[in-house]
This record gives sequence, structure tokens and C-alpha cells, in this order.
Amino acid sequence: MTPRSLTHSTTIHVRFSECDPLKIVWHGNYVKYFEDGREDFGKHHDFSYLEIYSKNGLSVPLVHLEMDYKRTASFGETLRVETKLIDDPAAKIVFEYKIFNSANQIICTGKTVQAFVHLEKHELQITMPPFFEEWKNKHLR
Amino acid sequence: MTPRSLTHSTTIHVRFSECDPLKIVWHGNYVKYFEDGREDFGKHHDFSYLEIYSKNGLSVPLVHLEMDYKRTASFGETLRVETKLIDDPAAKIVFEYKIFNSANQIICTGKTVQAFVHLEKHELQITMPPFFEEWKNKHLR
Amino acid sequence: MTPRSLTHSTTIHVRFSECDPLKIVWHGNYVKYFEDGREDFGKHHDFSYLEIYSKNGLSVPLVHLEMDYKRTASFGETLRVETKLIDDPAAKIVFEYKIFNSANQIICTGKTVQAFVHLEKHELQITMPPFFEEWKNKHLR
Amino acid sequence: MTPRSLTHSTTIHVRFSECDPLKIVWHGNYVKYFEDGREDFGKHHDFSYLEIYSKNGLSVPLVHLEMDYKRTASFGETLRVETKLIDDPAAKIVFEYKIFNSANQIICTGKTVQAFVHLEKHELQITMPPFFEEWKNKHLR
Repeated sequence: MTPRSLTHSTTIHVRFSECDPLKIVWHGNYVKYFEDGREDFGKHHDFSYLEIYSKNGLSVPLVHLEMDYKRTASFGETLRVETKLIDDPAAKIVFEYKIFNSANQIICTGKTVQAFVHLEKHELQITMPPFFEEWKNKHLR
Repeated sequence: MTPRSLTHSTTIHVRFSECDPLKIVWHGNYVKYFEDGREDFGKHHDFSYLEIYSKNGLSVPLVHLEMDYKRTASFGETLRVETKLIDDPAAKIVFEYKIFNSANQIICTGKTVQAFVHLEKHELQITMPPFFEEWKNKHLR
Repeated sequence: MTPRSLTHSTTIHVRFSECDPLKIVWHGNYVKYFEDGREDFGKHHDFSYLEIYSKNGLSVPLVHLEMDYKRTASFGETLRVETKLIDDPAAKIVFEYKIFNSANQIICTGKTVQAFVHLEKHELQITMPPFFEEWKNKHLR
Repeated sequence: MTPRSLTHSTTIHVRFSECDPLKIVWHGNYVKYFEDGREDFGKHHDFSYLEIYSKNGLSVPLVHLEMDYKRTASFGETLRVETKLIDDPAAKIVFEYKIFNSANQIICTGKTVQAFVHLEKHELQITMPPFFEEWKNKHLR
């Protein structure tokens, strides 16, 4: 069975300063594009880190990142980041990413995993926080 | 059997501008630390990208990157990147990384995979380039 | 007499990774916001670097940059960059910038100066290139 | 009369990811090199921001930055940043910078001005903080 998920699309304009001497986006800058996708996802789906901090006392640091590079992108290109939140039984936030160019070719795919950490206790939370379970039941399909 | 490998250590000083509002190194900046480790490895072990370009007509773009975050690091800290080239039977350059703080605790681990691409033909080279086989026979243990 | 000029406004969303441990935009990142403003100006006013390169054989490197910081900005804020091209009798491209927050307070002001360099001769062009004179006569008021 | 000053030299290795599609250091990255120079100056001359924060309750944000670009630098080059603290009668920290390549040619010059701000009162301090006057009397010539 496919896990429940929710996807959001974000448009990215490749900056000159994000490209390297090979005239392509430097591989490390895709981490920023993933973050742009994640932030935009949060804005559109009522899933803001600032609220997670303030209302639940939880920080959500990245614990894992992976990406596969399929094609290059250059200065001036417009890219589309598809950011997909995957339902995972563990107390983790799992996003998958696909970045496309304007010809709809895949440039890059990837995944991030975030854990829940109590800001006060500096402790990893290993059970699913209730607010996240509720959010998932409301938004994922 | 453990594959042959070669490891090099590089010292990193965490910059103020590399830290985020949580007062820790922003996760994307570890990609730079990996690159610092890789460059330094190349300098010390006669394995320079500029030479690979100029003498062999090959570019070595990243095709895969992964990292796991274990602990945080902050502005002013000195980190040690251990960059290890792994012998892989495929026509790929595979590096593994471990980043330690000054208390010798692991901050981050990761891996990069680079492919060989003919600059002129814009074609992936799927057989091991002879110069790399020779280099590995000379340097890996 | 006020020199002729042309102004364009660009919206910027402050990224998490652009903020520093003081929880404000790291001062060096305003250079990116200036570049964003300049690129956007070019797109909207038919003034593209790629065309300057390809049609006129000229590169336009920055030779001067200055900025004054008035207020801080933080993650999540939306800023407005006003990018103004100033008519200058010298063979230079002079932009002035004002960055405002959503309360219309000035965050930062600045200026960049670009020179024209022949790509082939690697030589500074000290007379006004005709295409730029024509563009200014058409667009500046 | 030349104002009293103190100069410190710092070595910089140009990173691949700091260079742009023109194969030169992207102009905005010199802001990082200035910061590297400033940090290194502080380490060697007992002038640490962390101490200024903790012992004096003062933050020292940049209020002005300027730079002039003279020559380009590329990936693999080793640069030298000369960071010079200038005695200024105002309650400001004024640094001047010169960046040289390995042939001792000037690449870039610049200046930064930092103000003293009370962290608690969020107020600009307009009189010279005593600790800074003492530090200058001890170190500047």
C-alpha cells in the first residue's frame, strides 16, 4: 500500500551566484532549493516550523539528507521543486523532493528526514507528537 | 574483505556566516566541508580535478550525495574532516566522510559518488579510466 | 539637475539559511539581494547580461560595491528591493539600491558600479558602448 | 598624522563553490574573506566578539561595507588578506582590508564599520566603550 502523502510545487529561479565554474548549479545549492520547497510547503499547508517551536516546544533538526543528480541546470533557468511529505510510522518528518527543469526533465531527486527534539530537555522525542498525528490525519491522502 | 582505501584528514574552522539562527552550522554547509576535505585529499594524494580535466578530458560531476547528522557544531569550533576514498569496481569515484569535533565526537557522516563524463562527447564513461586504475593501484591499501 | 534614472522593485523572501546566529540576515547576503534586484531589473527592462555578452562581446564585472545597514531583517520576512539605474557620463553601469521591510522601513541602502570589459582583448572599455547609450536614451527619464 | 593602526595577515584558499560561471571568485564572496580576516585578527590580538558580547553586553553589527575590485581570482588560488584596524575617534570599529594574490598583486580592497549596540537596551552606544579604548591603547601603534 502506498503511504499517504501530500505534495506541493515551488518555482525556483537559478541565481548567477548559485552556479559554479562549470556554469551549472553547484551541487550543494540544491540543499537550498530543498529548503525553499519545504518552507513553501509549510506556508501552504499550515505546517510552520515557527509554530512547531512556539506551540509545542519542539525543534525539528535534519538528521538525514540524500540527493541524486540526474541533469545539470544553469543560470537563468526556472526550476520546479516538488516537495512531498510522506507518512512515516516513526516520529520523524520525511520529505521527498523532485526538481524539474522547464522541459519537465528531472534534474535532481532527494529526501530529508527530520527528528523532533525537546528544546528544553535537549532530548530526542521518540513517540509521535500528537499535533503531528492530527496534522497528518487532516492533510494526507 | 574490506575494500582498499585511502584516508586524509582536514581541519575546518566554523565560520560565523556558516551558522544559522539556531546557532549551529546550517546543515547545507556540511556539503562545503565535504568539498574542502575532497580538495585537500586531492592536493595531498596527487589526485587533482584540474589534472583530470586537462590530461584526460574528463569531468567528474557528483551524481549522489548523502549525509547523516549526529551532533551539532557552532561558530568558533574547529572540526576535523576525515575523507576516505573507497575502491569501487564501477567507473566511479566514491568518497566517505566523517566529521569530528575537538572532543573527537562524530558530528556528521556522509558519502559522495562522482561519475566520469567526457567533456567533448558529453557522455558518461562507463568503463574505468586507465589513469584512475593506475592511481588506485599506486595509492590504495 | 537630477540625473536620468529608471527604478524597478523586486520582492525577496528571507531564507532560513541566509540568517546568522544573531537571528538576522547575515550582512554578506544583502549582496545576493542586490544581485536579485539587478537581475530582475534586467529582465523587465530589456537589459540582459547574457545579451550584452553575446551581442557586444562585453563582460560587465563589478568594480565597486558599497552598502549601509540601517535595520535588521529576519527569517520569514518579505523584503522589497528598489533597484535604480543611474545615468552616469562614464562608461559604467551604476545601480543604487534601497531595501525595505513590509512596514516600509529602510533596511539597507547601497550602490554597485560595473565596468565594460572586452572579453577577447581582456581590456577595459573606457568609452561608452553605443548599445548602452541607445538603451539609456530609450529607457531613462 | 597617520592614525594608529594594527595589521594582521590571513591566508585564504579559494574554494570551487566560491567561483562563478565566469570562473572567478563571485564578488559577494569577498565579504566572507573580509570576515575571515577579521576573525583571524581577533584571535591573534585578543579581540574576540564573543568576549565583547559576554563581558560587555555589546553587539557589534556592521553598519557600513565597501569594496573595490581590482583583479580577479580563481579556484585553487591562495590569497592573503591584510586586515588593519584603524584608530577612529568615533565609537566605531573600523577595519580596512587588502587582498593580494600569490604574485602580490592587489585583488580587492575594502572597509567595514561596526557600531556598538547594547544587547539589552537595543540601543546604539555613541560614546567609546572603555574596554575598547584600553584595548586600542595597548595594541595600536
